[in-house]
Order: sequence, then C-alpha cells, then structure tokens
Amino acid sequence: MIPERSLTHIGIVHSIFKKKFGIPRQPGIVSEAGARIELIPPFNNEQFVRGLEGFSHIWVLFVFHASADEGWHSTVRPPRLGGKKRVGVFASRSPFRPNPIGLSAVELEEISFEKGKVFLHIRGVDILDGTPVIDIKPYLSYSDSIAGASGGYAASAPERRFEVVFSDEADLRLLKEKENGHDRLRELIVDILSQDPRPAYYSSKHRRANFSISILDFEINWRVEDEAVMVTEVTDL
Amino acid sequence: MIPERSLTHIGIVHSIFKKKFGIPRQPGIVSEAGARIELIPPFNNEQFVRGLEGFSHIWVLFVFHASADEGWHSTVRPPRLGGKKRVGVFASRSPFRPNPIGLSAVELEEISFEKGKVFLHIRGVDILDGTPVIDIKPYLSYSDSIAGASGGYAASAPERRFEVVFSDEADLRLLKEKENGHDRLRELIVDILSQDPRPAYYSSKHRRANFSISILDFEINWRVEDEAVMVTEVTDL
Repeated sequence: MIPERSLTHIGIVHSIFKKKFGIPRQPGIVSEAGARIELIPPFNNEQFVRGLEGFSHIWVLFVFHASADEGWHSTVRPPRLGGKKRVGVFASRSPFRPNPIGLSAVELEEISFEKGKVFLHIRGVDILDGTPVIDIKPYLSYSDSIAGASGGYAASAPERRFEVVFSDEADLRLLKEKENGHDRLRELIVDILSQDPRPAYYSSKHRRANFSISILDFEINWRVEDEAVMVTEVTDL
Repeated sequence: MIPERSLTHIGIVHSIFKKKFGIPRQPGIVSEAGARIELIPPFNNEQFVRGLEGFSHIWVLFVFHASADEGWHSTVRPPRLGGKKRVGVFASRSPFRPNPIGLSAVELEEISFEKGKVFLHIRGVDILDGTPVIDIKPYLSYSDSIAGASGGYAASAPERRFEVVFSDEADLRLLKEKENGHDRLRELIVDILSQDPRPAYYSSKHRRANFSISILDFEINWRVEDEAVMVTEVTDL
C-alpha cells in the first residue's frame, strides 16, 4: 500500500466571488470574471513560474475548501440535469468529492512581481475568494484540448437563459460605481445572472424568491420575474 | 490558515508501462497505449461512475508515486527544451512538483463490472503501472478544450523523430507474440520508440548506448543507430 499524502498549499486565490452562491459553474463561462493567484512562501519566487508567461492558459488545481467539510456521496444531482437526476460523483464536476480537488483551465493575463509577492492574473474564473491552490500547470493544447470529445449530459456550454434588467435604483448605483472605477461591474452582473445561478429546484417553485450574490465589495439583490432577472438593489457587502 | 488535507486513493492504474523509462511524456501521444483503472473499495460500485459512460474522454488525477519521494526543485529542465534550459516547475508538467499530482486527459473506451470490481478501460495513457488515482472527472469540451490556447515552449505535439527498425531476432519474437494474441505490440513499440524516450542529455552523447523499456511482460532492448531506433531484442521481463 502506498502511503497517502497530504497537500501543500502553494497559493491562494483572490477572487471577485466572495460567496459560493452565484459562482459560474465552470470556468470560461463568465470571461469578465478576473482573479489573482498569490503564490505563498516559499513559492513566492520568480523561479517557480519562469517560462509560464509564454502560455495563454493554465490549469489551476485547488481545494474546494468551503465545501470540503460537508463530505460527499456516491452520486450527485448536477444542475445541468435540472437537479433531478443522479449521476456518479466521478461523472460530475461537483465540489463534493472524495478528494475535494477542483480543476479549472483559465486564461493567464499577466504575471506580476510586487515587493516579494508573485501574482498570476487570470480570467474566466469559477473560483471562490480565499481558495487554496495546490498546483499550477501550463495548458498544453496538443494533449489537453481534445476537439472531438463528446460530452455526455453536458455536451455544450449552458445556454444564456435570462435577460437581465435593472431597477432604477440599481442602475443609479452602478452608474456611480462606474465613475468609481468599477467600469465592467454591470457587464459582469449580466454575465453571471443570465446563467440563472438559482439552485435547480428553484426553477419550478419559489419563483418569486429573492436572492443575492456577492461580487467584489457589493451585494447584488435580484429575483426572477417573467423569465427575466430583475436586479432590484446593489448595496455594500 | 486552512488545514491541509491528505489524499484518498480511489483507484489504481493497471498499465502496460511497468517502468518509468519510455512512458510517453504526455497522454494521447501514443494512442495504442491502453490501460485500466480499477476502482478500489469503497469506490468499487457502479453508482460512483453512473453516467460517465456518455463521455468520450475523462480526466485522471493521480499521484506520481514512483517519483514523489525524490522531492522537487523550483525549476526543471523539460525534455522539450533539450534538457538544457530551465523553466519554473509550475511552467512544466514535470512529475517532480510540490504536490506530486498528475493530470491526464484520456479516452474512455468502456466501463466494465466484474465480480464486484469496476474497471475503466482507457486509451492514450502516459501513466505507470500501479499508479494511485485520486480523482476522475468527465472531460467537458466547452470549458476544458480551448481551441485557441497558445503553448509557450510546448506549442505543438512532439514530432516523430525516428524511424524504428527491428533486428531479425526481434522480428521473429514479435511474430510469435502476435500469434499469442499480442497483435498490436509491434505498433506500440514503434509509437513509443519513434518519440525517442532517451533523456535529453543522451541525444548528443553516449549515442551508441543501449536502452531498454518495459511494455506488458516484455523487455524491449534498443539503441539509436544513424538517426533510426534499432530494436535489438525482445525478451521476457
């Protein structure tokens, strides 16, 4: 028997997603979603990422830290199947798995070095703020990108389902924040909410329930009305 | 600080590659290379992989068990750079990394259930026999397959460099093994050896050195002669 190993954290994700609810279900879906990986000591050294800047995309392996203590089951109900049908945990990308390790291909925008710190600036993330990173690997097109792969129950990207509309109040706040430098906040909200992040069982009942998601330092309050998402209010987190 | 976690083995790889030397450097390169993942208790249950049969490809996350105890360095010398230039360990797919976790996209041929055992039959592997598996995830084309990804120092698949020729003795043995049911052994040897699995520093010196690789129960002895690989002898392992 080979001894089992414990994991070393090599970095931490600083993400716009401060809570689990509302995070895109796969990377790349919300391309506006930016984040930084900060390498933690002793990995905060240029040497560790030398040559990585030549790659347009990287793999991030991380720990699903916010759900790891909730355990796992042999089957899960993926949102893509309406939350009704069960598939095996190894036939899913659910965070609730025997080894709670996540895998995301993300765009690498830049690597920056600031006062002994190393930051990898990435885009298209589906990763929670504060997530521990356990590995970074270059994305190798010739072995990682399989053009002809067919995808079982998740063959294509989720469709944009909802139009997103804003209350006058929300509109005003976003205009103000745009002046404060958050110039893509509105687009980001549209990207995220058009995917309908409600748990699958909400789609049929509790139709008028109010939800909120957290992005950056803001709380975005919304509900579904007549097949559109209405953003009712944007407040400070 | 989030506590670090230990890894649970969920399966073991039964592979034709019995030794590290000669294993393809990325998955998919040697498509003839077949293997089976056996799920180990308590994961040896149909439930865990229900729905996975609909996916043509899967991700296998595994432990680089045969090299994990050799430690790691902040930089490595990838074979693709001739073994001369150093890049950061996180800019490489080297097995010698802070968390010795490997990531391979492989073709899923079939899932079989035999007397309480569950086997995933896979192709295109670059994984050593006996490797512990820590996770299996479906390959999702829409987020995992990035058509436009550009690849730094490893933008394209390694070129086939060498013609592979066989001694009369090796030829005879392979003919015999073909009759024994090893009907693709010769093609497999050609696929693997044409990639020139020699360590990069051998390409320029020790040109006449003899090498051997292990495939299935065979030892394949070979050397490089005039820009061709000569298989001198095929013996029992």
